[in-house]
Amino acid sequence: MHRFFLPPTCIQSENIIFPPDVAHQLKQVLHQREGQLVIVLDDQGMEYEVKLVSIQAHAAQGQIQIRRTAQGEPTFKLALFLCLSQREKFEWMLQKCTEVGVNAFTPVISSRSLVQQSEEVRKKYPRWQKIVQEAAEQSGRGRLPKLNPPLSFEQAVLESQINNRNAYLLWEGERARGLRQALTSIFPDQTRLALLVGPEGGFSDTEANLAVNAGLLLVSLGTRILRMETAALVASALVLYEGGEMNPQTPGTV
Amino acid sequence: MHRFFLPPTCIQSENIIFPPDVAHQLKQVLHQREGQLVIVLDDQGMEYEVKLVSIQAHAAQGQIQIRRTAQGEPTFKLALFLCLSQREKFEWMLQKCTEVGVNAFTPVISSRSLVQQSEEVRKKYPRWQKIVQEAAEQSGRGRLPKLNPPLSFEQAVLESQINNRNAYLLWEGERARGLRQALTSIFPDQTRLALLVGPEGGFSDTEANLAVNAGLLLVSLGTRILRMETAALVASALVLYEGGEMNPQTPGTV
Repeated sequence: MHRFFLPPTCIQSENIIFPPDVAHQLKQVLHQREGQLVIVLDDQGMEYEVKLVSIQAHAAQGQIQIRRTAQGEPTFKLALFLCLSQREKFEWMLQKCTEVGVNAFTPVISSRSLVQQSEEVRKKYPRWQKIVQEAAEQSGRGRLPKLNPPLSFEQAVLESQINNRNAYLLWEGERARGLRQALTSIFPDQTRLALLVGPEGGFSDTEANLAVNAGLLLVSLGTRILRMETAALVASALVLYEGGEMNPQTPGTV
Repeated sequence: MHRFFLPPTCIQSENIIFPPDVAHQLKQVLHQREGQLVIVLDDQGMEYEVKLVSIQAHAAQGQIQIRRTAQGEPTFKLALFLCLSQREKFEWMLQKCTEVGVNAFTPVISSRSLVQQSEEVRKKYPRWQKIVQEAAEQSGRGRLPKLNPPLSFEQAVLESQINNRNAYLLWEGERARGLRQALTSIFPDQTRLALLVGPEGGFSDTEANLAVNAGLLLVSLGTRILRMETAALVASALVLYEGGEMNPQTPGTV
């Protein structure tokens, strides 16, 4: 069944009023007809099984059949701090990491990030938001990952540890601590973690030192050198796997 | 240091004769100069630290300084059977899965593969070989992953279990067996595994049944639906992680 995150104003006690763009998608793109079922998500933890009762080019309505806690959402909250990179690579990371279950994204401007101006970055948010939402709908998430404002590296280091959250910085120079070893100290007690992923040229030594002094752990993904986007997806998947979020039949509730 | 897989004829007792295309790359692309060091790999299990002694536009030579067993190669042999898909997606999977350490790729024509003709596929091998080699060099592999000829789904099912190798088929309909559970039965005894990854529309029920009857295990990656390329990379990384191949300081030898 197709899934749609809708704003709260669209969800009434018994009925769903689809926004014009979703009505268009239902009719013209997905060729849905009256009587078919879709899933509507409120991004507040509930999902609704909805029967389509009227579909026109720019207006559609549905009737709520079942309401239940949203499925498919990890209970473990993984926050990803991603250094800004070229457009396609960054969008790719947002899409893939949403699929595996990342909870929040924060773009970071580090010394070697390919993008250095936060004004440029702000313009990209509507497009990024759309990418994240589509990936969340297609992969069956119960909530939309958060897209936070861009931060400098120094701000990201502080923010990553907010409320005593554990935070790891992926560092190819780390020769002792692998991800598995680092994670043994947080599971099963912790339910959240921050991961900082460097740009193409990696974090600088100065940045790694700053992170260590601020209390972050440097963590290695092994002896092979992964590209930035590979490292971001692989590390996210490994954390969620260790957190039990890649098992069947045990969907987290939101 | 830059790494290059070279054919055996280029590697002499004390010296390296670089092929013209690599000489061009050394001089024009990487701006290397006489006296600098590079790593040469023979794809037979050895690597050579080489001092560049002469670099011209289409000819370059080096002197072997150190010879040692190649580093960075997983001991665990993961064979990936990937259903054929659109060009960019398939190339992307070859690149990323080479980085994480997949040992061999076999393209598969299943009922829903986007490509259905093996003649079309053969033409792509030179380009694919180049993608795999570049990814292997950049990520620090000790050997080149093998690129096998394309197989039909039925052939792939047989080939995946060759010499009693365990083989898993990723199946979104699997509700009981996660990857972790499946892997507990092969580690630490087994040193190889085959993974079959379906195309965009997934394997058909008929194909899944055929695989089960042939002895493959159906395995789930959890409650979220991953795109084909995400599933291929994530599953490969998880297998190699469980096999201890993503730890620092413990590079496999080849």
